[in-house]
Amino acid sequence: MDLLKAKIQAEGIVIGTDVLKVDSFLNHQIDPVLMNEIGKEFAKLFSDKKITKILTIEASGIAPAVFTGKELGIPVIYAKKTTSLNLDENTYNASVHSFTKKIDYIIRVSKKFLSKDDYVLIIDDFLANGQAIIGLSEIIDMAGATLVGAGVVIEKGFQDGGALLREMGIRVESLAIVDKMSEGGIKFKNT
Amino acid sequence: MDLLKAKIQAEGIVIGTDVLKVDSFLNHQIDPVLMNEIGKEFAKLFSDKKITKILTIEASGIAPAVFTGKELGIPVIYAKKTTSLNLDENTYNASVHSFTKKIDYIIRVSKKFLSKDDYVLIIDDFLANGQAIIGLSEIIDMAGATLVGAGVVIEKGFQDGGALLREMGIRVESLAIVDKMSEGGIKFKNT
Repeated sequence: MDLLKAKIQAEGIVIGTDVLKVDSFLNHQIDPVLMNEIGKEFAKLFSDKKITKILTIEASGIAPAVFTGKELGIPVIYAKKTTSLNLDENTYNASVHSFTKKIDYIIRVSKKFLSKDDYVLIIDDFLANGQAIIGLSEIIDMAGATLVGAGVVIEKGFQDGGALLREMGIRVESLAIVDKMSEGGIKFKNT
Repeated sequence: MDLLKAKIQAEGIVIGTDVLKVDSFLNHQIDPVLMNEIGKEFAKLFSDKKITKILTIEASGIAPAVFTGKELGIPVIYAKKTTSLNLDENTYNASVHSFTKKIDYIIRVSKKFLSKDDYVLIIDDFLANGQAIIGLSEIIDMAGATLVGAGVVIEKGFQDGGALLREMGIRVESLAIVDKMSEGGIKFKNT
């Protein structure tokens, strides 16, 4: 998605070889006009599929997810993050390891919003190690629902999450795949 | 806003006299088509004002805020919640007391996204005791920016936040004001 790649080139800040800060338009300050275009793009990419729900994780997945949901006219669920291990029989829970923060956290979705009749599209802002999307797909499995695929705003193509998910048979559509980055610049994979 | 009030009547769950659960369309599962209409309504209500930024709090404020931002064509900032007291000289911080969870938490906004030239509209999902909006207004003050007003999706009119904010001179526009509620039903204030 050229508009997105241009925005990443203009405003993304690379720290070291691994961290890409896009907090001026994606995950602290949000550019809602760009998010609206991103929602349209995801709706187009998955237009061949039956989708009944979108699933994302708070907080930075919410903006791209709700614009996709608006475009498709379907509800969006955001999994809540918690570090509490208290069991709640009314929720599906999955454990997600964060390589960045070096912690495990629990993601939680109320059972009443996912059923075996649902066809679920996962939307998230970043794909690096794939752990968040694997956690979401586990919750979809627990509900007996069908995973349609995953739409990702920015994939770090040099980390192993994308390959891992695709090997699992998950259809992943990323709007920008960063092939290589350094403080000198960002190179995208041609898509 | 009639569409919203009808949705609250149809799907809101009252627990006791104080808790209104709207997690089927506002703060766990989100109805993005309704949020789009909510965004248009806030844009209309504040169309007499110069606004350069929208400020909200993660996670449940994000959906109504980004649709308002899309309508106005301006950036949305979401304050991050943390319980960490670590000082960060690059952020504005305010302490917010949660009466529901009986804890204080810190909300945090990067200094680079708010300046004295900004005219800021606060958007939030709920107004009960007003503590979150007061915290956000403190951050706007620290930045030397101008608070334009606050747009609230659901105001609990029987709690004191609305009166408190209006006494402080803050313009508050609520799309639905609950006057009274019990497990038997919900009554709105005529607006």
